[in-house]
Amino acid sequence: MNVGVLGAGAVGGSVVELAEEYGHTVTVFADSQSAVVDPDGIDAAAALSAKRTDGRVGSADPEAALDAEYDVLVEATPTTLGDAEPGFSHVRTALERDRHVVLANKGPIAERYGDIRRLEAESAGTVRFEATVGGALPVISTIEGFGPSRVGSLHGVLNGTANFILSRMSAEGLDYEHVLVEAQDLGVAETDPTFDVDGTDTALKGVIVANLLFEGEYSLEDASIEGIQALSGNMLELAREDGQTVRLIAEVRNGNIRVSPRLVPRESPVAPSGTHNAVQLTVEDAGQVTLSGRGAGGAETATAVLADVGRLGENRR
Amino acid sequence: MNVGVLGAGAVGGSVVELAEEYGHTVTVFADSQSAVVDPDGIDAAAALSAKRTDGRVGSADPEAALDAEYDVLVEATPTTLGDAEPGFSHVRTALERDRHVVLANKGPIAERYGDIRRLEAESAGTVRFEATVGGALPVISTIEGFGPSRVGSLHGVLNGTANFILSRMSAEGLDYEHVLVEAQDLGVAETDPTFDVDGTDTALKGVIVANLLFEGEYSLEDASIEGIQALSGNMLELAREDGQTVRLIAEVRNGNIRVSPRLVPRESPVAPSGTHNAVQLTVEDAGQVTLSGRGAGGAETATAVLADVGRLGENRR
Repeated sequence: MNVGVLGAGAVGGSVVELAEEYGHTVTVFADSQSAVVDPDGIDAAAALSAKRTDGRVGSADPEAALDAEYDVLVEATPTTLGDAEPGFSHVRTALERDRHVVLANKGPIAERYGDIRRLEAESAGTVRFEATVGGALPVISTIEGFGPSRVGSLHGVLNGTANFILSRMSAEGLDYEHVLVEAQDLGVAETDPTFDVDGTDTALKGVIVANLLFEGEYSLEDASIEGIQALSGNMLELAREDGQTVRLIAEVRNGNIRVSPRLVPRESPVAPSGTHNAVQLTVEDAGQVTLSGRGAGGAETATAVLADVGRLGENRR
Repeated sequence: MNVGVLGAGAVGGSVVELAEEYGHTVTVFADSQSAVVDPDGIDAAAALSAKRTDGRVGSADPEAALDAEYDVLVEATPTTLGDAEPGFSHVRTALERDRHVVLANKGPIAERYGDIRRLEAESAGTVRFEATVGGALPVISTIEGFGPSRVGSLHGVLNGTANFILSRMSAEGLDYEHVLVEAQDLGVAETDPTFDVDGTDTALKGVIVANLLFEGEYSLEDASIEGIQALSGNMLELAREDGQTVRLIAEVRNGNIRVSPRLVPRESPVAPSGTHNAVQLTVEDAGQVTLSGRGAGGAETATAVLADVGRLGENRR
């Protein structure tokens, strides 16, 4: 498949780096300032090197990227809330051109799911979004396999940064502020970790799952959200003495989306350690299915993007 | 999709029972003695009731079933070794008629993978086999999503009966023979549990995964197999005192298939309890991905069959 990649952050860059190994050709690569376009396939190494050294992937106009040749548009620009722009417009343009879309950007699927599905219905293109939930974990395609209407609920850990902080607080009895600084030093938490620790990122993923399970038009404002900033090391120690721990749990059930710190048994399948994610689906006739592994990271998330691109390729046969 | 179901055991029966909920129509249902055929959809409840009361699903000749109308043949007759007959011939007939095939029967995929792939290459039909490994767990489609060549290894528990016996031996310090009788009373172990406890069933699943990962023509004789019959309750207690337990582990790596009882930490993701299965895939750029849940059961395995039927339907669009 010919792939156009918008966004040159960790995920977009990894998609460009790995696409050839997955048998695909990157014909377009753009960030907000620049682009490189070649219908025969761009020079991925040169573009990634240019991004690192000059801050630009190439010399073409990013506006031209959307109208260039590709079978699948990979939307990997930063997640934005509310109108989810400019990601939403990128998706619309690609669908109006009858191209497929694979999202790593959570905004359009979390905030404007109904609009996206209506555009998809009028397009020959298909929208996929495995990478928006659970990094490398195949949460979306597993739900699709069982049939969304047969998956009653999801609960689990969907943010690696918050999980790392809670794991460290629990293991060492340290306070939130202390561990946050450590996480930032290690590169596990961003300079501004707000969305990871206040539950917003987890809630966006919960909203996406709710949209899929309940065919709704949920958005962030439909979620009940509590973060981990107010937790003390003491509380984690008390939990530990009782064989329990605290995790930032997303729960999607009966049309509700709830994100909050919860006590869970330390050996629970949804109490992963470090930056891992873990989710449990309750499936009619199949019981509880648990998926766990790396829920973030550029290369990890890129594998989910490229799995989606592969699935679109199969459907074309 | 119109579905033909061969085999009226727990899996075949559940497929017939659940197909309509998944949006499919069963046009053929046969066991080794009888069949019921209706191009407009059989009466599932009547056929299942007839099977229970008379031992026959209907009054038609089972020979006629293969030549009747269906888009997908579900092969759910008992697994046989060696030439994998009569399952293999059923698959061949359907592929020669350009129909899709979904297998729950492990024999043809474990023992004659190369033959199946060659028949598929000459057919307009596609072969899928999610249900042959890990019951309700989406092991095969997860491997396909990442790309089989990018999955370096699989290890974990793939037989619920053996896992139940080991869990009970470990929890109670009881010997194998004692727990086996209990498992048979509970219906967890069959009257003849040989293939479950001697590692054959686990090895067949390992062979299927090896065929997918290494594009090989592996069969059961390529696997190194050791069962759990010789384990004593004492050994399990010793392990337990050290924070460990014993599980019957399948390991598929570097072209090798090995099944043997192994010491694993009690909190390991591949030490599920009871009849659950759990597998860990090592994936390039994505790290370790763990799947766990119900690995057996008629309804559970039927959900995997019907997920495959659904995937074939998508490809037809």
